Amino acid sequence: VSRSGRRPGVSGTRERIIDCARRAFATRGYDATTLRVIAADAAVDPSLLIHYFKSKQGLFVEAMGFPIRPSETLSELAAVPLRQASERLVTIFVAMIDSEQSRNAMLALVRSAVSNEQAATVLREFVTAELLSIIATLTPHDDAALRASLVASQLVGIAMLRHVVRVGPLARAAPEAVVALVAPVLEEYLR
Amino acid sequence: VSRSGRRPGVSGTRERIIDCARRAFATRGYDATTLRVIAADAAVDPSLLIHYFKSKQGLFVEAMGFPIRPSETLSELAAVPLRQASERLVTIFVAMIDSEQSRNAMLALVRSAVSNEQAATVLREFVTAELLSIIATLTPHDDAALRASLVASQLVGIAMLRHVVRVGPLARAAPEAVVALVAPVLEEYLR
Repeated sequence: VSRSGRRPGVSGTRERIIDCARRAFATRGYDATTLRVIAADAAVDPSLLIHYFKSKQGLFVEAMGFPIRPSETLSELAAVPLRQASERLVTIFVAMIDSEQSRNAMLALVRSAVSNEQAATVLREFVTAELLSIIATLTPHDDAALRASLVASQLVGIAMLRHVVRVGPLARAAPEAVVALVAPVLEEYLR
Repeated sequence: VSRSGRRPGVSGTRERIIDCARRAFATRGYDATTLRVIAADAAVDPSLLIHYFKSKQGLFVEAMGFPIRPSETLSELAAVPLRQASERLVTIFVAMIDSEQSRNAMLALVRSAVSNEQAATVLREFVTAELLSIIATLTPHDDAALRASLVASQLVGIAMLRHVVRVGPLARAAPEAVVALVAPVLEEYLR
């Protein structure tokens, strides 16, 4: 029996864990939130969180409604040549922001981040811990972290102008046209 | 005597015009707001707006608290080689977002744009009418408008990661380090 006195089925438990996670990430930040804390809040064994979500990042991605696991996707990129990796990175990102569900999740996150210091912290910690560290492995430069941040900034800027501000030429462009112009630029940052 | 019954001095009139402009841009959008409309709201002769602000764009920039007139600055760029123009564009932009006053103005605009459809429209119309058309003149390509939007998206993304989300490597980087990496990328988009 859960804290709330309900006797939830499997899907109720999974939903309750996600609810608790969303609240914990929002109030404690990404770094300070552990699976143990979320499990305690949801009144379940921590092993159940590993069973459902594999990792803290997996649970965060689920809580945010993202359609992909960034670190799994990005790890694949390290295995192919840089030109191809750059193309694949923009292709995946544009497909993600162009799908309605993930666009809404992403816009909600950006909206919170610009109006709320705590949400900005969550987004910062997640981007730093899970995205930048992996993009940075694609480049051998001393300033790999800065170069990876600039790649991330180009992608975030595209999301802003394509879907938030909706500036005509970028909002209307076919995904392929965006990929063709942006891939060489990411390659320029990383090579 | 103004509508409010005060008999304002010169600086009171100027402030009142800016107030009326801010309200008009927010409620009607950038395109539909004319100097004539603002002059009527402020109960002054339209020629006084030209005297103080030169143009609708000048008044918008003033109302938004921007420290520069984008179109004047951008016109200068067309006169120098593309590499130099790209460097100058990033340098000016980073200096602008790094100054506290203009950062606050810009963040207020982005904050409004992500939460409010009307504010997003104002920002879109301004970017399209006053920035993209000029950046687009720097490149001879058929898809100049898309390339100009991507330049704008890279700059907006830098503002987001450096000052809103504050991702470490980009938030802490010296302006010169950012310029050195970003200028070749803008050149890649425009050449």
